[in-house]
Amino acid sequence: MKVLVVGANGQIGKHLVSFIQDSDNQEAKAMIRKQEQASFFEDLGAETAVVDLEQDIETIAAAAEGVDAIVFTAGSGPKTGADKTILIDLDGAVKTIEAAKVAGIKRLIMISSFDTSREAIQAAPSSFSPYVAAKHYADEWLKRTDLDYTIIHPGLLTNDKGTGQVEAAYEVDRAEVPREDVASVIVSSLENETTIGKEFQVVSGTKLIKEAITSI
Amino acid sequence: MKVLVVGANGQIGKHLVSFIQDSDNQEAKAMIRKQEQASFFEDLGAETAVVDLEQDIETIAAAAEGVDAIVFTAGSGPKTGADKTILIDLDGAVKTIEAAKVAGIKRLIMISSFDTSREAIQAAPSSFSPYVAAKHYADEWLKRTDLDYTIIHPGLLTNDKGTGQVEAAYEVDRAEVPREDVASVIVSSLENETTIGKEFQVVSGTKLIKEAITSI
Repeated sequence: MKVLVVGANGQIGKHLVSFIQDSDNQEAKAMIRKQEQASFFEDLGAETAVVDLEQDIETIAAAAEGVDAIVFTAGSGPKTGADKTILIDLDGAVKTIEAAKVAGIKRLIMISSFDTSREAIQAAPSSFSPYVAAKHYADEWLKRTDLDYTIIHPGLLTNDKGTGQVEAAYEVDRAEVPREDVASVIVSSLENETTIGKEFQVVSGTKLIKEAITSI
Repeated sequence: MKVLVVGANGQIGKHLVSFIQDSDNQEAKAMIRKQEQASFFEDLGAETAVVDLEQDIETIAAAAEGVDAIVFTAGSGPKTGADKTILIDLDGAVKTIEAAKVAGIKRLIMISSFDTSREAIQAAPSSFSPYVAAKHYADEWLKRTDLDYTIIHPGLLTNDKGTGQVEAAYEVDRAEVPREDVASVIVSSLENETTIGKEFQVVSGTKLIKEAITSI
Protein backbone atom coordinates (compact mmCIF):
# COMPACT_ATOMS: atom_id res chain seq x y z
CA MET A 1 0.00 0.00 0.00
CA LYS A 2 1.46 3.31 -1.12
CA VAL A 3 0.54 6.29 1.06
CA LEU A 4 0.82 9.95 0.14
CA VAL A 5 1.63 11.86 3.32
CA VAL A 6 0.50 15.48 2.92
CA GLY A 7 2.39 17.60 5.43
CA ALA A 8 5.21 15.04 5.68
CA ASN A 9 7.66 17.61 6.99
CA GLY A 10 5.48 18.32 10.04
CA GLN A 11 6.19 16.75 13.41
CA ILE A 12 3.58 14.00 13.06
CA GLY A 13 4.43 13.64 9.38
CA LYS A 14 8.07 12.79 9.97
CA HIS A 15 7.21 10.06 12.49
CA LEU A 16 4.54 8.77 10.12
CA VAL A 17 6.81 8.46 7.07
CA SER A 18 9.40 6.74 9.23
CA PHE A 19 6.87 4.21 10.61
CA ILE A 20 5.40 3.57 7.17
CA GLN A 21 8.86 2.88 5.77
CA ASP A 22 9.51 0.46 8.68
CA SER A 23 6.23 -1.40 8.08
CA ASP A 24 5.89 -4.55 5.99
CA ASN A 25 2.96 -3.57 3.81
CA GLN A 26 3.18 0.17 3.34
CA GLU A 27 5.47 2.60 1.57
CA ALA A 28 5.34 6.39 1.82
CA LYS A 29 5.39 9.20 -0.67
CA ALA A 30 6.24 12.38 1.23
CA MET A 31 4.54 15.53 -0.04
CA ILE A 32 6.71 18.46 1.02
CA ARG A 33 6.75 22.16 0.31
CA LYS A 34 10.43 22.68 -0.44
CA GLN A 35 13.07 20.66 -2.25
CA GLU A 36 15.52 21.15 0.64
CA GLN A 37 13.18 19.13 2.88
CA ALA A 38 13.58 16.06 0.65
CA SER A 39 16.82 14.55 2.01
CA PHE A 40 15.24 13.49 5.34
CA PHE A 41 12.71 11.38 3.44
CA GLU A 42 15.12 10.13 0.80
CA ASP A 43 17.31 8.84 3.65
CA LEU A 44 14.29 6.80 4.77
CA GLY A 45 13.93 5.43 1.24
CA ALA A 46 10.69 7.31 0.67
CA GLU A 47 9.61 8.93 -2.56
CA THR A 48 8.97 12.68 -2.41
CA ALA A 49 6.78 15.20 -4.23
CA VAL A 50 7.37 18.93 -3.91
CA VAL A 51 3.95 20.60 -3.82
CA ASP A 52 2.72 23.67 -1.96
CA LEU A 53 -0.84 23.33 -0.64
CA GLU A 54 -1.53 26.81 -1.96
CA GLN A 55 -1.17 25.39 -5.48
CA ASP A 56 -4.22 24.09 -7.33
CA ILE A 57 -6.12 20.80 -7.08
CA GLU A 58 -4.61 19.40 -10.26
CA THR A 59 -1.06 19.82 -8.91
CA ILE A 60 -1.97 17.96 -5.72
CA ALA A 61 -3.79 15.30 -7.75
CA ALA A 62 -0.66 14.75 -9.84
CA ALA A 63 1.28 14.00 -6.63
CA ALA A 64 -1.46 11.57 -5.56
CA GLU A 65 -1.46 9.70 -8.86
CA GLY A 66 -0.94 5.97 -8.28
CA VAL A 67 -1.05 5.92 -4.47
CA ASP A 68 -3.58 3.80 -2.54
CA ALA A 69 -4.27 6.21 0.31
CA ILE A 70 -3.73 9.81 1.36
CA VAL A 71 -3.04 11.09 4.87
CA PHE A 72 -3.60 14.80 5.48
CA THR A 73 -1.47 15.90 8.41
CA ALA A 74 -0.51 19.36 7.22
CA GLY A 75 -1.07 22.46 9.32
CA SER A 76 -0.13 26.07 8.96
CA GLY A 77 1.31 26.02 12.48
CA PRO A 78 1.13 28.56 15.28
CA LYS A 79 3.72 30.93 13.79
CA THR A 80 1.63 32.03 10.80
CA GLY A 81 -1.49 34.19 10.79
CA ALA A 82 -5.13 33.30 10.32
CA ASP A 83 -4.75 33.93 6.58
CA LYS A 84 -2.76 30.69 6.38
CA THR A 85 -5.30 29.00 8.67
CA ILE A 86 -7.86 29.55 5.91
CA LEU A 87 -5.54 28.73 3.03
CA ILE A 88 -3.85 25.63 4.50
CA ASP A 89 -5.91 24.13 7.35
CA LEU A 90 -9.20 24.64 5.52
CA ASP A 91 -8.59 25.22 1.82
CA GLY A 92 -5.49 23.01 1.62
CA ALA A 93 -7.44 20.18 3.23
CA VAL A 94 -10.40 20.62 0.88
CA LYS A 95 -8.09 20.77 -2.15
CA THR A 96 -6.47 17.51 -1.00
CA ILE A 97 -9.93 15.91 -0.70
CA GLU A 98 -10.84 17.14 -4.19
CA ALA A 99 -7.45 15.98 -5.51
CA ALA A 100 -8.17 12.49 -4.14
CA LYS A 101 -11.36 12.44 -6.23
CA VAL A 102 -9.54 13.67 -9.33
CA ALA A 103 -6.82 11.03 -8.93
CA GLY A 104 -9.36 8.32 -8.11
CA ILE A 105 -7.99 7.64 -4.62
CA LYS A 106 -10.79 6.44 -2.31
CA ARG A 107 -8.96 6.20 1.03
CA LEU A 108 -8.20 9.40 2.93
CA ILE A 109 -7.24 9.88 6.56
CA MET A 110 -7.64 13.36 8.00
CA ILE A 111 -5.69 14.46 11.06
CA SER A 112 -8.06 16.88 12.68
CA SER A 113 -8.10 18.72 16.01
CA PHE A 114 -9.43 17.18 19.25
CA ASP A 115 -12.87 18.77 19.06
CA THR A 116 -14.06 20.44 15.86
CA SER A 117 -17.75 20.54 16.72
CA ARG A 118 -19.90 23.66 16.36
CA GLU A 119 -19.92 23.87 20.16
CA ALA A 120 -16.10 23.79 20.23
CA ILE A 121 -15.88 26.78 17.88
CA GLN A 122 -18.14 28.75 20.21
CA ALA A 123 -16.33 27.64 23.37
CA ALA A 124 -12.76 28.20 22.15
CA PRO A 125 -10.75 31.23 23.28
CA SER A 126 -10.89 33.89 20.57
CA SER A 127 -7.28 33.33 19.55
CA PHE A 128 -7.99 29.65 18.88
CA SER A 129 -11.53 29.68 17.47
CA PRO A 130 -10.50 30.54 13.86
CA TYR A 131 -8.36 27.38 13.82
CA VAL A 132 -11.18 25.25 15.25
CA ALA A 133 -13.57 26.70 12.64
CA ALA A 134 -11.13 25.94 9.80
CA LYS A 135 -10.76 22.32 10.96
CA HIS A 136 -14.55 22.08 11.44
CA TYR A 137 -15.24 23.00 7.84
CA ALA A 138 -12.49 20.73 6.49
CA ASP A 139 -13.98 17.79 8.45
CA GLU A 140 -17.51 18.68 7.31
CA TRP A 141 -16.38 18.80 3.69
CA LEU A 142 -14.80 15.35 3.97
CA LYS A 143 -17.83 13.80 5.67
CA ARG A 144 -20.02 14.94 2.77
CA THR A 145 -17.92 13.05 0.20
CA ASP A 146 -18.18 9.35 -0.63
CA LEU A 147 -14.48 8.80 0.05
CA ASP A 148 -13.40 6.03 2.45
CA TYR A 149 -12.45 8.52 5.12
CA THR A 150 -11.25 8.33 8.70
CA ILE A 151 -11.03 11.48 10.81
CA ILE A 152 -8.61 11.28 13.72
CA HIS A 153 -9.00 13.82 16.53
CA PRO A 154 -5.85 13.69 18.69
CA GLY A 155 -5.64 15.21 22.18
CA LEU A 156 -3.02 17.72 23.24
CA LEU A 157 0.05 16.83 21.18
CA THR A 158 3.39 16.38 22.95
CA ASN A 159 6.87 15.45 21.80
CA ASP A 160 7.14 12.73 24.48
CA LYS A 161 8.33 9.32 23.37
CA GLY A 162 5.44 7.14 22.24
CA THR A 163 4.15 4.52 24.68
CA GLY A 164 2.29 2.45 22.11
CA GLN A 165 -0.80 2.66 24.28
CA VAL A 166 -3.84 4.86 23.76
CA GLU A 167 -7.50 5.35 24.44
CA ALA A 168 -9.52 5.84 21.26
CA ALA A 169 -13.27 6.27 20.81
CA TYR A 170 -15.81 8.67 19.31
CA GLU A 171 -15.55 10.65 22.54
CA VAL A 172 -12.86 10.44 25.23
CA ASP A 173 -11.75 12.78 28.01
CA ARG A 174 -9.32 15.45 26.81
CA ALA A 175 -5.72 14.51 27.62
CA GLU A 176 -2.24 14.52 26.14
CA VAL A 177 -0.95 12.21 23.44
CA PRO A 178 2.57 11.97 21.99
CA ARG A 179 2.86 12.77 18.27
CA GLU A 180 4.74 9.49 17.86
CA ASP A 181 1.68 7.57 19.10
CA VAL A 182 -0.59 9.53 16.75
CA ALA A 183 1.65 8.44 13.87
CA SER A 184 1.26 4.80 15.00
CA VAL A 185 -2.51 5.28 15.20
CA ILE A 186 -2.49 6.47 11.58
CA VAL A 187 -0.52 3.40 10.44
CA SER A 188 -2.96 1.13 12.28
CA SER A 189 -5.93 2.99 10.81
CA LEU A 190 -4.56 2.51 7.30
CA GLU A 191 -4.38 -1.24 8.01
CA ASN A 192 -7.88 -1.48 9.51
CA GLU A 193 -10.86 -1.05 7.20
CA THR A 194 -13.10 -0.93 10.27
CA THR A 195 -12.02 2.70 10.66
CA ILE A 196 -13.56 3.67 7.30
CA GLY A 197 -16.39 6.19 7.59
CA LYS A 198 -15.57 6.87 11.22
CA GLU A 199 -14.06 9.62 13.32
CA PHE A 200 -12.53 9.19 16.73
CA GLN A 201 -10.65 11.05 19.44
CA VAL A 202 -7.39 9.59 20.69
CA VAL A 203 -5.33 10.29 23.83
CA SER A 204 -2.74 8.38 25.83
CA GLY A 205 -4.23 5.32 27.49
CA THR A 206 -3.82 1.70 28.41
CA LYS A 207 -4.76 -0.19 25.26
CA LEU A 208 -2.22 -1.35 22.69
CA ILE A 209 -2.69 0.83 19.61
CA LYS A 210 -3.55 -2.07 17.28
CA GLU A 211 -6.24 -3.32 19.66
CA ALA A 212 -7.62 0.15 20.27
CA ILE A 213 -7.93 0.80 16.53
CA THR A 214 -9.34 -2.64 15.67
CA SER A 215 -12.19 -2.09 18.13
CA ILE A 216 -13.07 1.43 16.91
CA MET B 1 -42.80 40.69 4.21
CA LYS B 2 -40.55 41.18 7.21
CA VAL B 3 -36.84 40.97 6.43
CA LEU B 4 -34.01 40.41 8.90
CA VAL B 5 -30.99 42.34 7.63
CA VAL B 6 -27.83 40.74 9.05
CA GLY B 7 -25.06 43.31 8.88
CA ALA B 8 -27.53 46.20 8.81
CA ASN B 9 -24.94 48.69 10.03
CA GLY B 10 -22.71 48.03 7.00
CA GLN B 11 -22.68 50.33 4.00
CA ILE B 12 -24.98 48.17 1.89
CA GLY B 13 -27.04 47.31 4.97
CA LYS B 14 -27.93 50.91 5.76
CA HIS B 15 -29.14 51.57 2.19
CA LEU B 16 -31.04 48.29 2.28
CA VAL B 17 -32.93 48.98 5.51
CA SER B 18 -33.78 52.42 4.22
CA PHE B 19 -35.13 51.07 0.88
CA ILE B 20 -37.07 48.30 2.64
CA GLN B 21 -38.71 50.85 4.95
CA ASP B 22 -39.61 52.96 1.90
CA SER B 23 -41.18 50.00 0.09
CA ASP B 24 -44.85 49.12 0.13
CA ASN B 25 -44.64 45.44 0.95
CA GLN B 26 -41.54 45.02 3.10
CA GLU B 27 -40.42 46.01 6.57
CA ALA B 28 -36.94 45.58 8.01
CA LYS B 29 -35.55 44.21 11.23
CA ALA B 30 -31.98 45.45 11.54
CA MET B 31 -29.55 43.01 13.18
CA ILE B 32 -26.71 45.08 14.62
CA ARG B 33 -23.73 44.38 16.83
CA LYS B 34 -24.01 47.26 19.29
CA GLN B 35 -26.91 49.02 20.96
CA GLU B 36 -25.46 52.44 20.04
CA GLN B 37 -26.00 51.57 16.34
CA ALA B 38 -29.76 51.30 16.89
CA SER B 39 -30.88 54.93 16.60
CA PHE B 40 -30.16 55.13 12.84
CA PHE B 41 -32.60 52.28 12.25
CA GLU B 42 -35.14 53.39 14.83
CA ASP B 43 -35.28 56.74 13.01
CA LEU B 44 -36.25 54.78 9.89
CA GLY B 45 -39.00 53.06 11.85
CA ALA B 46 -37.22 49.70 11.69
CA GLU B 47 -37.10 47.14 14.46
CA THR B 48 -33.62 46.21 15.72
CA ALA B 49 -31.96 43.18 17.30
CA VAL B 50 -28.56 43.42 18.96
CA VAL B 51 -26.65 40.24 18.12
CA ASP B 52 -22.96 39.64 17.49
CA LEU B 53 -22.29 37.11 14.71
CA GLU B 54 -19.70 35.51 16.97
CA GLN B 55 -22.58 34.41 19.23
CA ASP B 56 -24.21 31.02 18.74
CA ILE B 57 -26.81 29.82 16.24
CA GLU B 58 -29.65 29.90 18.78
CA THR B 59 -29.06 33.61 19.49
CA ILE B 60 -29.20 34.43 15.78
CA ALA B 61 -32.26 32.20 15.36
CA ALA B 62 -34.03 34.13 18.12
CA ALA B 63 -33.48 37.36 16.16
CA ALA B 64 -34.86 35.66 13.04
CA GLU B 65 -37.99 34.40 14.75
CA GLY B 66 -41.09 35.53 12.88
CA VAL B 67 -39.44 37.14 9.85
CA ASP B 68 -40.18 36.02 6.30
CA ALA B 69 -36.71 36.38 4.83
CA ILE B 70 -33.09 36.92 5.86
CA VAL B 71 -30.48 38.96 4.00
CA PHE B 72 -26.85 38.32 4.94
CA THR B 73 -24.81 41.40 4.09
CA ALA B 74 -22.37 41.33 6.99
CA GLY B 75 -18.62 41.43 6.47
CA SER B 76 -15.66 41.69 8.79
CA GLY B 77 -14.32 44.53 6.64
CA PRO B 78 -10.81 45.35 5.51
CA LYS B 79 -9.63 46.71 8.87
CA THR B 80 -9.75 43.42 10.77
CA GLY B 81 -7.50 40.41 10.36
CA ALA B 82 -8.09 37.04 8.72
CA ASP B 83 -9.24 35.64 12.08
CA LYS B 84 -12.42 37.70 11.67
CA THR B 85 -12.62 36.66 8.01
CA ILE B 86 -13.06 33.08 9.26
CA LEU B 87 -15.34 33.97 12.17
CA ILE B 88 -17.63 36.47 10.39
CA ASP B 89 -17.47 36.06 6.61
CA LEU B 90 -17.44 32.27 6.78
CA ASP B 91 -18.65 31.10 10.19
CA GLY B 92 -21.06 34.00 10.76
CA ALA B 93 -22.63 33.31 7.37
CA VAL B 94 -22.97 29.58 8.07
CA LYS B 95 -24.44 30.27 11.51
CA THR B 96 -26.99 32.59 9.89
CA ILE B 97 -27.90 29.83 7.41
CA GLU B 98 -28.27 27.32 10.25
CA ALA B 99 -30.24 29.87 12.28
CA ALA B 100 -32.66 30.23 9.34
CA LYS B 101 -33.27 26.47 9.52
CA VAL B 102 -33.75 26.58 13.30
CA ALA B 103 -36.23 29.46 13.02
CA GLY B 104 -37.99 27.88 10.05
CA ILE B 105 -37.19 30.73 7.64
CA LYS B 106 -36.91 29.40 4.08
CA ARG B 107 -35.86 32.53 2.19
CA LEU B 108 -32.25 33.71 2.46
CA ILE B 109 -30.32 36.12 0.29
CA MET B 110 -26.54 36.01 0.55
CA ILE B 111 -24.42 38.98 -0.48
CA SER B 112 -21.28 37.33 -1.72
CA SER B 113 -18.18 38.56 -3.50
CA PHE B 114 -17.96 39.01 -7.29
CA ASP B 115 -16.25 35.69 -8.00
CA THR B 116 -16.04 33.03 -5.29
CA SER B 117 -15.16 30.11 -7.54
CA ARG B 118 -12.32 27.70 -6.82
CA GLU B 119 -10.43 29.34 -9.70
CA ALA B 120 -10.89 32.78 -8.10
CA ILE B 121 -9.32 31.61 -4.83
CA GLN B 122 -6.28 30.39 -6.77
CA ALA B 123 -6.06 33.53 -8.92
CA ALA B 124 -6.50 36.10 -6.13
CA PRO B 125 -3.54 38.06 -4.78
CA SER B 126 -2.35 36.41 -1.53
CA SER B 127 -3.72 39.25 0.61
CA PHE B 128 -7.20 38.71 -0.84
CA SER B 129 -7.42 34.93 -1.29
CA PRO B 130 -8.37 34.16 2.36
CA TYR B 131 -11.44 36.39 1.92
CA VAL B 132 -12.38 34.75 -1.38
CA ALA B 133 -11.97 31.32 0.23
CA ALA B 134 -14.18 32.30 3.18
CA LYS B 135 -16.93 33.55 0.84
CA HIS B 136 -16.50 30.43 -1.33
CA TYR B 137 -17.21 28.10 1.58
CA ALA B 138 -20.14 30.20 2.82
CA ASP B 139 -21.70 30.08 -0.66
CA GLU B 140 -21.02 26.34 -0.95
CA TRP B 141 -22.67 25.72 2.42
CA LEU B 142 -25.77 27.63 1.35
CA LYS B 143 -26.05 25.87 -2.00
CA ARG B 144 -26.08 22.51 -0.21
CA THR B 145 -29.13 23.43 1.87
CA ASP B 146 -32.77 23.24 0.78
CA LEU B 147 -33.35 26.89 1.64
CA ASP B 148 -34.87 29.21 -0.95
CA TYR B 149 -31.59 30.98 -1.51
CA THR B 150 -30.31 33.67 -3.84
CA ILE B 151 -26.59 34.45 -3.99
CA ILE B 152 -25.75 37.92 -5.26
CA HIS B 153 -22.20 38.56 -6.49
CA PRO B 154 -21.69 42.32 -6.82
CA GLY B 155 -18.82 43.88 -8.77
CA LEU B 156 -16.41 46.44 -7.32
CA LEU B 157 -18.47 48.34 -4.74
CA THR B 158 -18.48 52.13 -4.83
CA ASN B 159 -20.19 54.83 -2.81
CA ASP B 160 -21.43 56.54 -5.98
CA LYS B 161 -25.08 57.49 -6.12
CA GLY B 162 -27.20 54.65 -7.48
CA THR B 163 -28.31 54.88 -11.12
CA GLY B 164 -31.07 52.32 -10.85
CA GLN B 165 -29.58 50.52 -13.82
CA VAL B 166 -27.51 47.35 -13.79
CA GLU B 167 -26.37 44.34 -15.73
CA ALA B 168 -27.13 41.09 -13.94
CA ALA B 169 -26.51 37.51 -15.07
CA TYR B 170 -24.77 34.32 -13.97
CA GLU B 171 -21.62 35.76 -15.49
CA VAL B 172 -20.91 39.38 -16.47
CA ASP B 173 -17.73 41.34 -17.09
CA ARG B 174 -16.15 42.66 -13.90
CA ALA B 175 -17.03 46.33 -13.33
CA GLU B 176 -18.06 48.76 -10.64
CA VAL B 177 -21.46 48.96 -8.99
CA PRO B 178 -22.72 51.47 -6.40
CA ARG B 179 -23.68 49.98 -3.03
CA GLU B 180 -26.99 51.82 -3.35
CA ASP B 181 -27.81 49.87 -6.51
CA VAL B 182 -26.84 46.60 -4.83
CA ALA B 183 -29.34 47.41 -2.08
CA SER B 184 -32.03 47.98 -4.74
CA VAL B 185 -31.10 44.68 -6.38
CA ILE B 186 -31.66 42.95 -3.01
CA VAL B 187 -35.11 44.52 -2.62
CA SER B 188 -36.02 43.44 -6.15
CA SER B 189 -34.70 39.93 -5.50
CA LEU B 190 -36.85 39.64 -2.38
CA GLU B 191 -39.86 40.53 -4.53
CA ASN B 192 -39.03 38.11 -7.34
CA GLU B 193 -39.33 34.40 -6.68
CA THR B 194 -37.62 33.76 -10.01
CA THR B 195 -34.34 34.48 -8.21
CA ILE B 196 -34.79 31.50 -5.85
CA GLY B 197 -32.12 28.85 -6.22
CA LYS B 198 -30.00 31.12 -8.39
CA GLU B 199 -26.79 33.09 -8.11
CA PHE B 200 -25.82 36.02 -10.28
CA GLN B 201 -23.19 38.68 -10.73
CA VAL B 202 -24.28 42.29 -10.89
CA VAL B 203 -22.52 45.45 -12.10
CA SER B 204 -23.61 48.84 -13.34
CA GLY B 205 -25.41 48.59 -16.67
CA THR B 206 -28.24 49.78 -18.81
CA LYS B 207 -31.24 47.76 -17.62
CA LEU B 208 -33.69 48.98 -15.02
CA ILE B 209 -33.08 46.96 -11.86
CA LYS B 210 -36.58 45.46 -11.73
CA GLU B 211 -36.33 44.30 -15.34
CA ALA B 212 -32.82 42.96 -14.87
CA ILE B 213 -33.86 40.93 -11.81
CA THR B 214 -37.12 39.68 -13.29
CA SER B 215 -35.24 38.20 -16.24
CA ILE B 216 -32.55 36.48 -14.13
